[in-house]
Amino acid sequence: MIEGTIVVLTGGVGGAKLVAGLADIVAPESMTAIVNTADDFTHLGLHISPDIDTLIYTLAGLANPKLGWGRADETWNFMEALTAIGGEDWFSLGDRDLAMHVERTRKLKAGEPLSAITRSLAAALGVKANIAPMTDQPVSTHVHTDSGTLAFQDYFVRQKCAPRVRSIAFTGADLASPSPRALAALRADDLAAIVIAPSNPWLSIDPILAVPGLAETLRSSAAPVVAVTPLPGGKAVKGPTAKIMEELGIPLNVQSIAAHYGSLIDGLLIDLTDPEPDGIAFARHDTIMKTHEDRVSVARAVIDLAGSL
Amino acid sequence: MIEGTIVVLTGGVGGAKLVAGLADIVAPESMTAIVNTADDFTHLGLHISPDIDTLIYTLAGLANPKLGWGRADETWNFMEALTAIGGEDWFSLGDRDLAMHVERTRKLKAGEPLSAITRSLAAALGVKANIAPMTDQPVSTHVHTDSGTLAFQDYFVRQKCAPRVRSIAFTGADLASPSPRALAALRADDLAAIVIAPSNPWLSIDPILAVPGLAETLRSSAAPVVAVTPLPGGKAVKGPTAKIMEELGIPLNVQSIAAHYGSLIDGLLIDLTDPEPDGIAFARHDTIMKTHEDRVSVARAVIDLAGSL
Repeated sequence: MIEGTIVVLTGGVGGAKLVAGLADIVAPESMTAIVNTADDFTHLGLHISPDIDTLIYTLAGLANPKLGWGRADETWNFMEALTAIGGEDWFSLGDRDLAMHVERTRKLKAGEPLSAITRSLAAALGVKANIAPMTDQPVSTHVHTDSGTLAFQDYFVRQKCAPRVRSIAFTGADLASPSPRALAALRADDLAAIVIAPSNPWLSIDPILAVPGLAETLRSSAAPVVAVTPLPGGKAVKGPTAKIMEELGIPLNVQSIAAHYGSLIDGLLIDLTDPEPDGIAFARHDTIMKTHEDRVSVARAVIDLAGSL
Repeated sequence: MIEGTIVVLTGGVGGAKLVAGLADIVAPESMTAIVNTADDFTHLGLHISPDIDTLIYTLAGLANPKLGWGRADETWNFMEALTAIGGEDWFSLGDRDLAMHVERTRKLKAGEPLSAITRSLAAALGVKANIAPMTDQPVSTHVHTDSGTLAFQDYFVRQKCAPRVRSIAFTGADLASPSPRALAALRADDLAAIVIAPSNPWLSIDPILAVPGLAETLRSSAAPVVAVTPLPGGKAVKGPTAKIMEELGIPLNVQSIAAHYGSLIDGLLIDLTDPEPDGIAFARHDTIMKTHEDRVSVARAVIDLAGSL
């Protein structure tokens, strides 16, 4: 156990693994995950928060390890029936998972902010760590591609990341403000470390940093800011990180990650297979997280790195 | 097969059985069911049309015979997950059934009228008979009881019809107009019969008749109007018909049914166990519909009665 509180900036799958590891080495109530909500979208009239749900399911022990999203022991009878009546079925919603979207949507319409809803959904599933949306306002990732501008889930799920990315925009970010719980966690007197999870920097972390006030708060924090590379050995573990970097003309190596975060971070946890990055404090570790032990081990390594700064 | 078209006024379960029987003896496309929508309500942000869905499921061969509502081979994982996160779970929604409510709600929000949505949902499930909501406007049954005024599903499902009924109101009916398909079916040149299904007259048929224009069109139609008693031998087959009649001070016999519809109907199909009603043409038949053969047999009897008038 370390002294003080921890904040983690995270997207979905990859980041959630590290958060699950951190939850084992810090008291869960001492940890706040600030989660990307720019992948949120309205589908079939339901407000879906993919990254928040991945965090909740992962920390609740309900995540589907095979799919990498959604719930374990899921059934798909809603989707089957929806397809039969001609509904839009490109985005799969499991029967149990649906409860989250229906309840979240109902509460949003009743005027509850997303952060309060997230807290109550997480608590109902026994999650003790704090899960805070980056903002309570709507922010939407749009991907400018060779095939035009696409809403994130259209790009990511419907088109399976096939179009070539030219640039990425976070619509609404300029008008958003950090969720009060995110800001409070970053400003806590006993904050010991700010961790940037090994999520896609361009798609998952940049939207968080695009919310006015969050990057500034990171920079002005007395606590060390440390990132875990999402690109061990220059390869993305899962998802389109490598493909997007190539399309944006960014070299596939750890130096690019260091350069991307620049002076925002004080240290970088690199993989055993990575070359030494220039101009940044770093530590080495096997950053591939296959087992829960791997997750805890990477969590320890990143906290040790923070402690050394 | 009879010549011409048929219109049936119906609520859910009991009425749907007769409609299923009629579908066997008339060409399905020659039959229009005008369905009560005053039981419709918004629950968890979803627009639920219980009677329309019962009709669609029954005619599609998908109805749940044990429950009397919802779909056969249903799973309940959404409900289980909803309960786990503290959602409102007094109204059960099956995983497959949910697809109807989600898709209907989405289409309503997109501006499609309920009658067009109903037609496309029914067609997608292979239903050839015409299923027309009584109106495309919102009408809501409210039950004035000893425990105050209750919305219909609150009375019917949450409170299991326990409160004593004093009177029943159809909020919004005065401002509603018949759905165009309902009106067109009632005005068809080749209309051979108008059948009032053995649904609850006070809760399921009265709201249809409360839509301005529908009762008038029945009265002015050249086609005979015939009803099937919902109270064989003075007992309700299922549901609160008998209880409500008692609470409203109405004797539990077929004469009360004849009196309720009065001059609106030209004939009444009574049960073998009923005494002869006064002042109305009638025919006798076993009106309990347990098997599909029973349904077809009752359907034949009511069409024969109409043909004799």
